[in-house]
Amino acid sequence: MSTSKRTLSQKTGIKLRSFFRKFPGVPYIFKWLLISLIIGLCIGTASALFLKSLNWVTEFRESHKWIIALLPVSGFFSGLLYHYFGKNVEAGNNLLIDNIHNPDKIIPFRMAPLVYLGTIATHFFGGSAGREGTAIQMAGSIADQFSKPLKLNSEDRKILLIAAISAGFGSVFGTPLAGAVFGLEVFLIGRIRYNAIFPAFAAAILADWATNIWNVEHTHYHISIVPKIELLPIVYSIIAGIAFGICAATFSKTIHWASALFKTKIKYAPLRPVLGGFIVALAVLALGTTRYIGLGIPVILESFEQQAPLSDFALKMAFTIVTLSAGFKGGEVTPLFFIGATLGSALSFFLPLPFSLLAGMGFVAVFAGATNTPLACMLMGIELFGVECGIYVAIACVVSYLLSGHNSIYTRQRIGEAKH
Amino acid sequence: MSTSKRTLSQKTGIKLRSFFRKFPGVPYIFKWLLISLIIGLCIGTASALFLKSLNWVTEFRESHKWIIALLPVSGFFSGLLYHYFGKNVEAGNNLLIDNIHNPDKIIPFRMAPLVYLGTIATHFFGGSAGREGTAIQMAGSIADQFSKPLKLNSEDRKILLIAAISAGFGSVFGTPLAGAVFGLEVFLIGRIRYNAIFPAFAAAILADWATNIWNVEHTHYHISIVPKIELLPIVYSIIAGIAFGICAATFSKTIHWASALFKTKIKYAPLRPVLGGFIVALAVLALGTTRYIGLGIPVILESFEQQAPLSDFALKMAFTIVTLSAGFKGGEVTPLFFIGATLGSALSFFLPLPFSLLAGMGFVAVFAGATNTPLACMLMGIELFGVECGIYVAIACVVSYLLSGHNSIYTRQRIGEAKH
Repeated sequence: MSTSKRTLSQKTGIKLRSFFRKFPGVPYIFKWLLISLIIGLCIGTASALFLKSLNWVTEFRESHKWIIALLPVSGFFSGLLYHYFGKNVEAGNNLLIDNIHNPDKIIPFRMAPLVYLGTIATHFFGGSAGREGTAIQMAGSIADQFSKPLKLNSEDRKILLIAAISAGFGSVFGTPLAGAVFGLEVFLIGRIRYNAIFPAFAAAILADWATNIWNVEHTHYHISIVPKIELLPIVYSIIAGIAFGICAATFSKTIHWASALFKTKIKYAPLRPVLGGFIVALAVLALGTTRYIGLGIPVILESFEQQAPLSDFALKMAFTIVTLSAGFKGGEVTPLFFIGATLGSALSFFLPLPFSLLAGMGFVAVFAGATNTPLACMLMGIELFGVECGIYVAIACVVSYLLSGHNSIYTRQRIGEAKH
Repeated sequence: MSTSKRTLSQKTGIKLRSFFRKFPGVPYIFKWLLISLIIGLCIGTASALFLKSLNWVTEFRESHKWIIALLPVSGFFSGLLYHYFGKNVEAGNNLLIDNIHNPDKIIPFRMAPLVYLGTIATHFFGGSAGREGTAIQMAGSIADQFSKPLKLNSEDRKILLIAAISAGFGSVFGTPLAGAVFGLEVFLIGRIRYNAIFPAFAAAILADWATNIWNVEHTHYHISIVPKIELLPIVYSIIAGIAFGICAATFSKTIHWASALFKTKIKYAPLRPVLGGFIVALAVLALGTTRYIGLGIPVILESFEQQAPLSDFALKMAFTIVTLSAGFKGGEVTPLFFIGATLGSALSFFLPLPFSLLAGMGFVAVFAGATNTPLACMLMGIELFGVECGIYVAIACVVSYLLSGHNSIYTRQRIGEAKH
């Protein structure tokens, strides 16, 4: 009995081994499913904590607006923090992209708490910034801590970092498919390589699931009218895409120029956000509105419901560029959503397309141009607004991507393929 | 007055020129918009004619079933046609893929009428085949006729062929986004290059629009229940994906093996479809059903509405492999949809996921594995079934892609990147 049992289990073992040899994809998939589950749970939880903190500080700031006066002070402390403890993680997203191209030392874990604290402070005291950079940096530094215990070689570590970026992006915006493709698309302009396709999708989907376990609500946007596909609406979408692409290129160029200016004019790094914070706080006082600071979700939602004034996108651009180039922590993407959605909504003054559709197109297309990730942005548009507007969103993202040239908010992105 | 006018127009000219120099994407986009409009209108119209003819011959065959007895005869004539007039276009899809890698002579226009006639005959007399191969070959040969009049250089001609594939695929299935990505994805395994991204999207969208102008109805599929994303359903989807991938690899391997067998056993090409047609007609008589011939749309729809028996996918596979490897004309993709949808639906006997969801996942995932185009198939799933099932469809497509190895129904696809 026991012999025949052993024989049976041996037989099963042999059969399984020969099956795995025939389909090497199967053990690969279960290995990466396990890794994705571990990092997905951690990253999704971190994103949930981050999103809840953001909600809390945003509400607090909006009901205690005097706190914005402290933005220069908070900038000084956040600058000191990075000056003394954060030198090796200051490169942020670019450090991750660099490590995907040339795996170097493990990303220090301190990147996660530092960027978390820095970003929360930026939003608490009223800087204009986003959250994707923070989510991605937290994700990358958390995931990379598993590289040693899991004994990953440098090829596997590259894949782990791509999966982490996918997971961070997918969970912070609640768009796992866009997150997965973003991770595959972001480090190389003009190409996608599929070597990390399963880990990217698995980690993004599992991280999004983990974030949802913590009862985090993502914002819902609504495009009310989508016109039938005809030649003229297609041409209008192309024209809108051109505007989005020029806007994206302008944003990328100006933010690099402003950062360089801050760096040459103010040698001592912690003083840069003091000046930046002073300018932003003063501008809030002068304009008498907090419309252009923080994430700006209410204004984004408004741009789907009524035509935005042309000033909205320009002012948000100015506020964000000053905040981020002065050295405040936070991402660029939610401001890019704001800039794109309000620019799109305002374009309805000139273009005969519904403003909510143009807002949705701009939301993803300016971001597509600034990060050179057209397919991820198209998927994001479909995940956020539904597949009905897919064709319009696709045109806007692709045209914006082409127009923005080889500019990018990520300086370490490499060119895999000339755009045209 | 006239001087100042001229000056104004000169000034505008100078301004435009400097704008175009600053944003070279703009003239590029309008150049390719125009080309895409021309080829899109032609290809969309060809697809519309093709789809209407298919409907007509399918209806005729189903109401005059005795005609299936003539399948061997029709195979002989179709074989003769290609033997005498089609030697240089026989490679079909592979000829297009080859020309994208190494631009050679212009694709002969005769490819379009030949593959159209051949495919219509296959469906009229009851072979089991698809339509995407035909649509793509018609598209490629039509579009390439514009290469000389438009004076395209060989780089532009590559882009034109990619755009044509996108347009053919997008218009024949009514899924322009999937079509665009399919064109970019199909010629290289494991990579996407974005050099043709705008022409691919523009041509696919415009061709789909042109097809719709001719009042062509595409089939609608409906997934009734999509479970919430949880860990277990994700694991079940991965297991389903593994089954779809193994099925795709088996299909690709068997069809190549069977083609080689027909070629070695029967030297005179026009006689091969005679034997193939004889086998298929006899099998229809023996089984007493036309369930497994033609496109099989009614059975695909059925698999979304009730659990399919396990025999469905196996029989369709056998019918299609005999039909196509014997040399009948037609695509592989709609049979792959059939095989995947019925296999998925049948998997609900073993996996606790809704059968309509599994049918939808299989519909696109077996095709993803057989053609190595996971992103196009994921988009197709979203375009056909809605974004709600996007995550499940994505898992199935990516896993199937990984599992199918470096097998492909297109022998001339090149490996751009090892899968894992």
